[in-house]
Amino acid sequence: MEIKPGQLLQHINSPDDLKKLGKDQMLQVCQELRQYIIDVVSVHGGHFGASLGVVELSVALHYVFNTPYDQLVWDVGHQAYGHKILTGRRDNFITNRKYNGLSGFPKRSESVYDTFGVGHSSTSISAALGMAMASHYKGETDRQHVAIIGDGAMTAGLAFEAMNHAGIEKSNVLIILNDNCMSIDPNVGALKEYLTDITTSHTYNDLRDNVWKALGKLPGKNFSRDMASKVEASLKGIVSKSSNLFEALKLRYFGPIDGHNITKLIDTLNDLKDIPGAKLLHIKTVKGKGYELAEKDQTKWHAPGLFDKVTGEIVKKKFDLPQPPKYQDVFGHTIIELAEQNKTIMGITPAMPSGSSLKFMMEQMPDRAFDVGICEQHAVTLSAGLATQGMRVFCNIYSSFMQRAYDMVIHDVAIQKLPVVFCLDRAGLVGEDGPTHHGCYDIAYMRCIPNMIVSSPMNEAELRNLMYTAQLESNQYPFVIRYPRGEGVMPEWKTKMEEIKVGTGRKLKDGEDIAILTFGHPGNFAAAAIRDVKSEGINPAHYDMRFVKPLDEAMLHEVFGKFNKVITVEDGTVVGGFGSAILEFMNEHGYKADVGVMGIPDRLVEHGTPKQLYDEIGIDANGIAGVIREMASVKIKAKALV
Amino acid sequence: MEIKPGQLLQHINSPDDLKKLGKDQMLQVCQELRQYIIDVVSVHGGHFGASLGVVELSVALHYVFNTPYDQLVWDVGHQAYGHKILTGRRDNFITNRKYNGLSGFPKRSESVYDTFGVGHSSTSISAALGMAMASHYKGETDRQHVAIIGDGAMTAGLAFEAMNHAGIEKSNVLIILNDNCMSIDPNVGALKEYLTDITTSHTYNDLRDNVWKALGKLPGKNFSRDMASKVEASLKGIVSKSSNLFEALKLRYFGPIDGHNITKLIDTLNDLKDIPGAKLLHIKTVKGKGYELAEKDQTKWHAPGLFDKVTGEIVKKKFDLPQPPKYQDVFGHTIIELAEQNKTIMGITPAMPSGSSLKFMMEQMPDRAFDVGICEQHAVTLSAGLATQGMRVFCNIYSSFMQRAYDMVIHDVAIQKLPVVFCLDRAGLVGEDGPTHHGCYDIAYMRCIPNMIVSSPMNEAELRNLMYTAQLESNQYPFVIRYPRGEGVMPEWKTKMEEIKVGTGRKLKDGEDIAILTFGHPGNFAAAAIRDVKSEGINPAHYDMRFVKPLDEAMLHEVFGKFNKVITVEDGTVVGGFGSAILEFMNEHGYKADVGVMGIPDRLVEHGTPKQLYDEIGIDANGIAGVIREMASVKIKAKALV
Repeated sequence: MEIKPGQLLQHINSPDDLKKLGKDQMLQVCQELRQYIIDVVSVHGGHFGASLGVVELSVALHYVFNTPYDQLVWDVGHQAYGHKILTGRRDNFITNRKYNGLSGFPKRSESVYDTFGVGHSSTSISAALGMAMASHYKGETDRQHVAIIGDGAMTAGLAFEAMNHAGIEKSNVLIILNDNCMSIDPNVGALKEYLTDITTSHTYNDLRDNVWKALGKLPGKNFSRDMASKVEASLKGIVSKSSNLFEALKLRYFGPIDGHNITKLIDTLNDLKDIPGAKLLHIKTVKGKGYELAEKDQTKWHAPGLFDKVTGEIVKKKFDLPQPPKYQDVFGHTIIELAEQNKTIMGITPAMPSGSSLKFMMEQMPDRAFDVGICEQHAVTLSAGLATQGMRVFCNIYSSFMQRAYDMVIHDVAIQKLPVVFCLDRAGLVGEDGPTHHGCYDIAYMRCIPNMIVSSPMNEAELRNLMYTAQLESNQYPFVIRYPRGEGVMPEWKTKMEEIKVGTGRKLKDGEDIAILTFGHPGNFAAAAIRDVKSEGINPAHYDMRFVKPLDEAMLHEVFGKFNKVITVEDGTVVGGFGSAILEFMNEHGYKADVGVMGIPDRLVEHGTPKQLYDEIGIDANGIAGVIREMASVKIKAKALV
Repeated sequence: MEIKPGQLLQHINSPDDLKKLGKDQMLQVCQELRQYIIDVVSVHGGHFGASLGVVELSVALHYVFNTPYDQLVWDVGHQAYGHKILTGRRDNFITNRKYNGLSGFPKRSESVYDTFGVGHSSTSISAALGMAMASHYKGETDRQHVAIIGDGAMTAGLAFEAMNHAGIEKSNVLIILNDNCMSIDPNVGALKEYLTDITTSHTYNDLRDNVWKALGKLPGKNFSRDMASKVEASLKGIVSKSSNLFEALKLRYFGPIDGHNITKLIDTLNDLKDIPGAKLLHIKTVKGKGYELAEKDQTKWHAPGLFDKVTGEIVKKKFDLPQPPKYQDVFGHTIIELAEQNKTIMGITPAMPSGSSLKFMMEQMPDRAFDVGICEQHAVTLSAGLATQGMRVFCNIYSSFMQRAYDMVIHDVAIQKLPVVFCLDRAGLVGEDGPTHHGCYDIAYMRCIPNMIVSSPMNEAELRNLMYTAQLESNQYPFVIRYPRGEGVMPEWKTKMEEIKVGTGRKLKDGEDIAILTFGHPGNFAAAAIRDVKSEGINPAHYDMRFVKPLDEAMLHEVFGKFNKVITVEDGTVVGGFGSAILEFMNEHGYKADVGVMGIPDRLVEHGTPKQLYDEIGIDANGIAGVIREMASVKIKAKALV
């Protein structure tokens, strides 16, 4: 079914085309753009609510500013669909987030209108300030630089750091605070409450009104206009200077205004263009605006998958057999089971209660599970603080987001040897979100830290056992458990939990000639590959190592004592990862086996379905079987010669 | 020379002893404590100005609060000398920062009064909030949790993240903002200006005064007390709710008060003890307070080394011969040389203009070199923004602090392949600052990132050549140059700069039997070791690899084609570092040499002089010579048998 853009939109191939239209036509452009996003996303998938919420803003920005000379930086970027459609990518938009298609986020290599690649939150102000400082240095005084950032992203420290700097720079930066009270889940924290406060009660206006009310009781004739204006001026001078959080940071504050009023937006942006320096425009928007169901349940409609745009029914896959659960849900339910037994257990998530499934515990044990907002750094150091008091914290952070808290893991947890449990969700290739979100580096960046235990479960039961083990009093080390996005392999996942001795692997299968050592979920691919090559007379052994740190040295001595051909398989980078750990062990103990190190190659892997991506890099049953055959063939050839 | 504490201080072996004294004796305790710090630091070294600035605060906190049940978290911690002396470590304080002595920072393993290990800035609010939430959960409602944080540390995003959370928690947290307008160098940013604003003009008071002044012109008789109080109430209600940055974050704000008025401090802290929830006390202090020279030149006296406490003369080592410069100064002067030629060069430092020596460029080219405050995250993403506009940014961050910006390096720089130059200062073991500051992990955590170039110079000329190479238009990749704290090896360091082909090493010396591959400055130790073993008939080859990524593959083929005994030497962790990179290369190409991987072991290395620490871990001429002998002896024995 072909998706046709509306009458005006079909002729907008660049912001220049948009600018040829009258201001009075922008309302229609907005309607058509919104409809086009609904039409495409319902059939092709992607993020939904965020882009609907900034339809008017997207149109207004490209109408008012001289893009791409003027530079727009979209924070996070999953709300930039309207921007993409208006900047030459309308027809190609049906490839959004698909293999070899458009990225779901702005990306410099995709368009000159995408000034900065994003995906993680809260980078936009720093990036736009950098652009603005470069323009200032070059003398491009007319050039505008706009960061569009949500109130959720504003809670991350990076945004604050950038505002603290922007406030004292003389460069042209406009920060547009897109305030919709949401991250993926509802936004949390004091800032959110503050934004609500200044929206519901305009501080200056309120102050003035209150003073007038008090003064109003005075006899009118004694109260001259002159005095009135003096009072007002003195109030205004003081209040506007310091009454506002952003003004306190030396940013001129404007707003709040209705972010769905296209005319008002255009007029305001036009006014702000002429004001030099750093300023902030606060707009109020509704996530999912214009699609009623999305407005009502904003978390569900953040990225709903495919749906019937008329009925709002979300397409669900149907299966004849019971399916394995998501690792996320196994985590979410298991932490509650454990917390019921162990009163010291707490759960922390930085703004991913739904994504991590910590939400179940937050509902059931609200005094023990917390969403702290988009702030991975604080999440980790807070966990460390809790741990000093004997609490056993499960701090659940996506692998690629944990990069944000790397110093806190080292400095606040590992150096102090605090037994915080880090559940690294979304480890490995995450699929459609692409390179910014792939969890490729965690094995390498975690195992180089002293005192860390770094583990990965091959299936649901193993995840449960690792969680059980990590919370035992006997464990006195920081404990990483990394697992991928999506389904495991055990429909009957609710197994009895058992302690795993830290640093021990599992021999899944004896074999000949070749040993395969796997770490985590890709062990399942290896098991399938082993089944595939059986008919060819190849019979590899299979060891699920479970821990990359500490390594199961006894098991490795067995492996290298018996095999001189070994394959390592992981869903992390081959640079410094699990395979390298095995090479280090071999070198230390003088083993000289041939090792095929299989993992994520040392280059960026783009977006697509996880299946497509793992196929591309060869980390699946086929790929592993291929390497088994290749390494075995030397042996087979040798046998044939005998 | 024995250092004697004063009459009162000599009897204070714990806060209990302090509490036995009268409030009127606290002034004397402060005087004695200040004198003792001056006496010890002048002779034994250490941080100076920061602890002098919080003498009164340290005394007041331990006098008022029930430590260690009540918990003090010192941010950064180099200001906690007074705290250490008051909590049982007075006599041992002469071992401060010495090998096997007291740590220069609070450290959990050292004292129950040290509730949280610190060193890096801005962790205290998160940690204290974690402790407070644990107390809240346990029902310890009387327990107090105090974070003491400077205005410099307050600029880091982590502090903001924590305040945003603290403001909505019901837990007992008192944040003491120790406002002295300084980091090591003068603090920068909008927040600093704001703090000055609220100090010089108490917002609420000003507002009220101004209104009264305007109203004062009204006929007195018409203006009743009743109306006056109504006006005041309406003002106060609004202003106190939202006029203050911290109140905006839902923290009750108190202050500012004089942080050197011990009586006022004690009274205020006593009052605040009874106010539940999250609150902030703003105190004004002078860094270096009580030692005139330190008050006047606060950067110089941050950590002056040894000095004559009477004359204030700082002890300088005297040398007969010209000495090699610090790597820092080579960086600081070379960037200016380069920037004079290449107009796109800019310099960025997060609060380390003196430490990194970027200060020279900041003075000479103020529009091209910037101190952005304590905010490594922003420093990196800002650099990325500048790089999108064709600027060639040298972003200089200490190795251990770069851990703070790890995601920005990956997400904003490497994924976008922006040619930012990262100068990682203080790589390797830094010495007296200890495990929080050692730059042990950067080789491992940087080389696992795609698109990165990771290099390290063996001497000053190499540093200059790497800097020259990194800024050339022909380089289009992010480029890491890591170098240690302190002196290089070339008194005549101002060499002509030459391009180094990226990914090429240098063969320094041919040899037999053994090849030594080194990365960075420890190459000098290896060269010394080679000289040492010469007389024993051992003649190793020496290769300075220069790049751990990309590796010089041609050179490595030469090495492994010729040698089956190889030693790798680096001043980074042996887990996933340079040695592992060599093992990965060998494995990929089927080489089977014996490799001795020498580097920082996979455990915490404590504090001491760099010499002591490198001796301890064997990364010096002796240690390397030992390994050479060991590996060579197999060969020598074999020769002897023939």
